[in-house]
Amino acid sequence: MRSLSVDLGDRSYPITIAPELIQSDSWVEHIAGRQVCVVTNVTVGPMYLDAVLPRLEGRQVSVVSLPDGEQHKTLEQLGDVFDRLLGDGHNRTTTLIALGGGVVGDMTGFAAACYQRGVAFIQIPTTLLAMVDSSVGGKTGVNHPLGKNMIGAFYQPRCVVIDTNTLASLPQREFAAGLAEVIKYGLIVDKPFYEWLKLNWQALLERDQDVLAEAILRSCENKARVVAEDEREAGRRALLNFGHTFGHAIETATGYGSWLHGEAVAAGMVIAGRLSVELGWIQTQEVDEFANLLAQAGLPLQPPAEMDCQQFMSLMARDKKVVDGSLRLVLLKAIGEAVVSSEASSGAIERALAGCRG
Amino acid sequence: MRSLSVDLGDRSYPITIAPELIQSDSWVEHIAGRQVCVVTNVTVGPMYLDAVLPRLEGRQVSVVSLPDGEQHKTLEQLGDVFDRLLGDGHNRTTTLIALGGGVVGDMTGFAAACYQRGVAFIQIPTTLLAMVDSSVGGKTGVNHPLGKNMIGAFYQPRCVVIDTNTLASLPQREFAAGLAEVIKYGLIVDKPFYEWLKLNWQALLERDQDVLAEAILRSCENKARVVAEDEREAGRRALLNFGHTFGHAIETATGYGSWLHGEAVAAGMVIAGRLSVELGWIQTQEVDEFANLLAQAGLPLQPPAEMDCQQFMSLMARDKKVVDGSLRLVLLKAIGEAVVSSEASSGAIERALAGCRG
Repeated sequence: MRSLSVDLGDRSYPITIAPELIQSDSWVEHIAGRQVCVVTNVTVGPMYLDAVLPRLEGRQVSVVSLPDGEQHKTLEQLGDVFDRLLGDGHNRTTTLIALGGGVVGDMTGFAAACYQRGVAFIQIPTTLLAMVDSSVGGKTGVNHPLGKNMIGAFYQPRCVVIDTNTLASLPQREFAAGLAEVIKYGLIVDKPFYEWLKLNWQALLERDQDVLAEAILRSCENKARVVAEDEREAGRRALLNFGHTFGHAIETATGYGSWLHGEAVAAGMVIAGRLSVELGWIQTQEVDEFANLLAQAGLPLQPPAEMDCQQFMSLMARDKKVVDGSLRLVLLKAIGEAVVSSEASSGAIERALAGCRG
Repeated sequence: MRSLSVDLGDRSYPITIAPELIQSDSWVEHIAGRQVCVVTNVTVGPMYLDAVLPRLEGRQVSVVSLPDGEQHKTLEQLGDVFDRLLGDGHNRTTTLIALGGGVVGDMTGFAAACYQRGVAFIQIPTTLLAMVDSSVGGKTGVNHPLGKNMIGAFYQPRCVVIDTNTLASLPQREFAAGLAEVIKYGLIVDKPFYEWLKLNWQALLERDQDVLAEAILRSCENKARVVAEDEREAGRRALLNFGHTFGHAIETATGYGSWLHGEAVAAGMVIAGRLSVELGWIQTQEVDEFANLLAQAGLPLQPPAEMDCQQFMSLMARDKKVVDGSLRLVLLKAIGEAVVSSEASSGAIERALAGCRG
């Protein structure tokens, strides 16, 4: 079993990574009291509830099954979770369990943050993206028609339980979306990991259990380190948004759910890479190299044909990283070294977007 | 000018109390950036926006006017605030200003806690209840049809601006509702203040400016002290809920808005007082004495005739202070000394309720 800790003082918590963790009793000790509410979705629930529920015997258990998909990550849908919690009489010592991908994790975490002003929750991510990104670090929330993750809270789980067996049945498109976030860690803060990924890319694409577990561990370690330094994103944590400002614009423009988050991030990283080339920081070949890895995973390298530069600029103006009107982007000074920068002109952004299409 | 500080480490903030504070520039320094969104309601807005808006000249200002009343303190209504913030392009450096009573303050604070995972906010309470209670201490949130304040966050404002002039126009019923919370501080933790209140009750009822400012200061000092000791209500902060468990049940049973919060708390304190007599902790005359003060203010001393003990018990079972099934009530060991107790039997609660009706 691989494991690590997210160091956040009295809100620190463990992440464990191994096959068949769901069936084990290892995570049950993190349940706060007698009551538990498992939040899952209509796709994941039927696959893993049979493994989770026996671990909860003797407790009062509710199950909420959300519709599947980013388009349902809304304040309205969150109301259904609160209805169930209150309808079933859950009190302040209840524990919410997020069983599913990023959408389930973000919504469950936000529900836990708000229910009676905060109850315990446990993350059991079942997608690669949720394992390496959204389940770690405490960003929770829902989307708004005018912007992604605009309503939420920083709220940390009691533990993160990563059962690598769940990846065997993950659809290829979702698996690839997770790989976009894995490669991101190498690009922004960990060149040795990027070099390791290049060597192990084929094994990763074939879902080799041990390579996969190592890639998840190193991704989580990178994320945990950045989050421990800057939990509330006052500075360095923003680096984790490499590719995300462009990616969020793509997701907003196309309507949540048609592009997967990781797919939008992949295209966004290529745009941000080309923009870093425009600023003279990295070489075209370096962008081509990581774009090639993304392509091998079947990820998109270009934004939707119908999105012009004007639409990107107007959507990005609403990004959370905008500070009093100035657009701040995460760009690469070098491979393995990202920075937050306001240096990119709209002309440079236009050229980078054109370069992606070329 | 009277002032005090709520000591919460890097989330500490000042409370200032004086006439004509709204018109002063004293609070403007607490605004985080270029953008401001004033959240008020249809009653309070027309009275004070003319005083607030000139202070915000040169900034990008949005105004959201909510419907008036506790029945509108909902997740749905909160969506309107997010719609406006996003529609007007407010970013992470925006500041929300709560201009109004407890409902406006609770909703604005919760909106600030959730918008982009947390932005700055300022409390400008315009009712006595909001001044002495809800604007201080960082409890924010909305109601659910199945329980009051069930969805929310602990989130502290940048400052609390108490302009005592706003009390001159406060309807008598709302003024009285605030007095219920004022007297509560004396009963639970500050016997000298309770003695002072008995001496100054008539002047307070006549809204003597100086007596009023002193009562607000001492109420806020008591609340600030308790909150500083126990921000997230792990222990001592629960004492502030004296009368509230019964009061919330009354509010839920009658539908939010027909009883004012302070009115429900007044009746709830009398029930909790009689229950403390049942346990042999205080004397009947002591309850009669503070009930008499409440009656002089025009506050109700009895729960609604249609509520029986069974209904109280079933509504209170959903209270946030319930821990794994055991009902914990705030009761009086003595005047000025409240405790959290699970000692009251349902028989004793029934007798206390009957005593209120007697």
